[in-house]
Amino acid sequence: MNYGIVLRVLGILLIIEGFLMIPSLLISFYSQGPDLKAFAIGILLAFFLGIILSRKKAKTPSISAREGLAIVSFGWIFASLIGAIPLYISQATPTYIEAFFEIVSGFTTTGASVISNVEALPKGILFWRSFTHWIGGMGILVFTVALLPALGIGGFQIFKAESPGPIAGKVAPRIRDTAKILYSTYFIITIIQVILLLFGGMSIFESLTHSFGTVGTGGFGIRNSSLGSYSSYIQMVVGVFMILSGVNFSLYYSLFKGNLKDAWYNEELRLYLAIILFATIGISFNLYLTNYSSFGISARDSFFQVGSIITTTGYSTADFDLWPSFSKGILLLLMFIGGSAGSTAGGMKVIRILIMFKLIRREITKIFHPRAIILLKNDDKVISNEVVAGIYSFIALYLVIFALGTLLVSLEGVNLESAASSVIATLSNIGPGLGFVGPTRSFAGYSQATKLLLSFFMLLGRLEFFTIIALFAPRTWRGEI
Amino acid sequence: MNYGIVLRVLGILLIIEGFLMIPSLLISFYSQGPDLKAFAIGILLAFFLGIILSRKKAKTPSISAREGLAIVSFGWIFASLIGAIPLYISQATPTYIEAFFEIVSGFTTTGASVISNVEALPKGILFWRSFTHWIGGMGILVFTVALLPALGIGGFQIFKAESPGPIAGKVAPRIRDTAKILYSTYFIITIIQVILLLFGGMSIFESLTHSFGTVGTGGFGIRNSSLGSYSSYIQMVVGVFMILSGVNFSLYYSLFKGNLKDAWYNEELRLYLAIILFATIGISFNLYLTNYSSFGISARDSFFQVGSIITTTGYSTADFDLWPSFSKGILLLLMFIGGSAGSTAGGMKVIRILIMFKLIRREITKIFHPRAIILLKNDDKVISNEVVAGIYSFIALYLVIFALGTLLVSLEGVNLESAASSVIATLSNIGPGLGFVGPTRSFAGYSQATKLLLSFFMLLGRLEFFTIIALFAPRTWRGEI
Repeated sequence: MNYGIVLRVLGILLIIEGFLMIPSLLISFYSQGPDLKAFAIGILLAFFLGIILSRKKAKTPSISAREGLAIVSFGWIFASLIGAIPLYISQATPTYIEAFFEIVSGFTTTGASVISNVEALPKGILFWRSFTHWIGGMGILVFTVALLPALGIGGFQIFKAESPGPIAGKVAPRIRDTAKILYSTYFIITIIQVILLLFGGMSIFESLTHSFGTVGTGGFGIRNSSLGSYSSYIQMVVGVFMILSGVNFSLYYSLFKGNLKDAWYNEELRLYLAIILFATIGISFNLYLTNYSSFGISARDSFFQVGSIITTTGYSTADFDLWPSFSKGILLLLMFIGGSAGSTAGGMKVIRILIMFKLIRREITKIFHPRAIILLKNDDKVISNEVVAGIYSFIALYLVIFALGTLLVSLEGVNLESAASSVIATLSNIGPGLGFVGPTRSFAGYSQATKLLLSFFMLLGRLEFFTIIALFAPRTWRGEI
Repeated sequence: MNYGIVLRVLGILLIIEGFLMIPSLLISFYSQGPDLKAFAIGILLAFFLGIILSRKKAKTPSISAREGLAIVSFGWIFASLIGAIPLYISQATPTYIEAFFEIVSGFTTTGASVISNVEALPKGILFWRSFTHWIGGMGILVFTVALLPALGIGGFQIFKAESPGPIAGKVAPRIRDTAKILYSTYFIITIIQVILLLFGGMSIFESLTHSFGTVGTGGFGIRNSSLGSYSSYIQMVVGVFMILSGVNFSLYYSLFKGNLKDAWYNEELRLYLAIILFATIGISFNLYLTNYSSFGISARDSFFQVGSIITTTGYSTADFDLWPSFSKGILLLLMFIGGSAGSTAGGMKVIRILIMFKLIRREITKIFHPRAIILLKNDDKVISNEVVAGIYSFIALYLVIFALGTLLVSLEGVNLESAASSVIATLSNIGPGLGFVGPTRSFAGYSQATKLLLSFFMLLGRLEFFTIIALFAPRTWRGEI
């Protein structure tokens, strides 16, 4: 392993993180919050460690697959360790482990919180929590990668390891251009949402924090009732922008280049929208026939919650833990599916579900045509057997980790629904689950060990497993690869 | 479609079923039960319909894949429709739909019951319920197939469609010999268990019904507390024979032929035993640390329940619905796994889980060796890509049906744990689930529609999906295949 380059890139990453904490420091300064010192220490520490690490000399300027894995895994862990410092010092959380959980939850755009009363938090901390969503959404490392060529380091391995979805698609031939395009889209969507929220009567602080949480599909809010106390207009804006943020970002680039056909005939997009439509209809009727007296309100709450869960954002406008089993069941299913590949959303991703269904269909056809060779296609492109094997193994691993994780969390003494939803809510980077971790509750009730385990699941989910698992494989350290 | 041969084989099947009802008629006669008339009518109807159908002339004596599917699917449905008649006429169940559910549950070796007070049932009905497990365990159609060559009809397509597991293995070159070997094993295991139970003080009636339920991995008992009120000796005999019945039967033939190595180095067997061991240890400790005061008793109850659930039998010695979440979670996981391929057990089968893990391992290796071609092997035999695709699609379809089924059952207003366990308990042919369908309860509380849906799931699970799904595909009926 070329340790030099790994440490060097990690150092650059921490320096960038230091700069990214400055807005929170300024907010703390202007609002005269008690968290000013906490941010000052955090920033200094980030710069100090960053400068030390970035001075390491690299043997060669190229990054292999192994080093890419190490940079990505340790990058996310280091950034969370440093990012947690302001929360710990300002006593926003009782221990450092809770602070770490909270910031891992931020960077991975999960939105699961250990803080039950967020309204008591100082403004700087609230801003930093939401800002980590926005940073993590597109991947702070993609940002780092965009800078690497300027430093003479190639970074495709990092881009590949950090990008969600089965096929790491480059929009432009050069990674730097790809990053630039994706970031521009990300910026533009955020700005539009901020403006629309300002129109709805939100303050600049409120519209910024909520836009970060929406576009990053994170879910940290600034009120205890999440979005429940805001107007229908605000709820609709957030609802629509969550769904927009769960779409593959490269489709926006196609649209921008006037390539409407590519976007419209995209199979993943169609399935994504179809799932949202059917889930919303199903829950609307179920709520109308049970808990709600107005179909309009049940449709509105249903639409918001479906959008929030499938995009793995995790905002809520109602306590869906009180909804009937059928509605809760649909939401639980959406927690596994997640958003589109190449978006900021978590979960298994719609494209994997799509290809899984295509494979099932092929097997059924094969019963009748045992000798037929049927090519699997997506968007008229043939999917190789290697990609198929990767997708199936990913889904299988997802479910294995989900099952084993549920067993471990069930040792806390909570019921199976709570344990299972705690695991999927963190693994798919959603935030709230059901029962013990329902939308009106927090993860504060779990032991420190479970909090660490769930932090690990958030990272596993965000980096789509194989990156992190490979890092833990003994062979990686024996240098066999 | 060669309708002639399909109807002819179905007719032969019904005649056989008529003969198989005669023991129950005799028991009813000797115990002077109120169910004598019910069996007489059932038997006459089976013979009457059977003779009419078996007189159909076949165009050709050969059976294609399509006809094999039709025979198997309709065979199981027809046999259940006729087998339900004695229960309906003797008023063991309130409606015919309940009687159908109960006998589908019998033939598919599920053991899920809609009768809450089985102790009130006449002896003939109790015997018939348990006997359907034994008939269904090895597959009444395999039995039919064994007779077909004598009638000049080839039946490998039926054997293939009815045998559980990813690879339809023929033990002997001719199907007739394979069937003979499997049936002999089945008979011998049953006889040994009957003798051991007689030693434990059971009556012949009790030992027969329980042996049918054990070796067929069914689970219908004759007491409301299942096996809870029997001695530890009886519980241990049943526990061990459940586990023996969840082993691939062809391994017993290997043992019999002196081929100890084949059995001992069988990878599926090893994983199956390892799962039982670890699950038993996990639950024993969990129970000892929470509900139980004696480690011996917690180990005994844990061993019995693990054996009962992984083999998808469904007998119980304790109300495991009252166990802590961790123990319930392990049992729920075992419900998905099921027993070995080529046994009488249901579920996904251990071999599929084994190959799934091998595929995950291969994907992780591939991260480091992207160009490596790694062959998948089981018992030193290479597994083809076709078999792998079939296994993955099977697992995926299993989970899709599980998820959609849970949503449908949740419309009954039960909680998600009850809905989910109702579906997996029927799909994996187990019997009892958790909560609303826990071991001390029955499926009686569900609506008629849900009972029909769950009956369908039992058939889907027993025939491993593709057989039945293919039958429902529109193409089958348009004659395109």
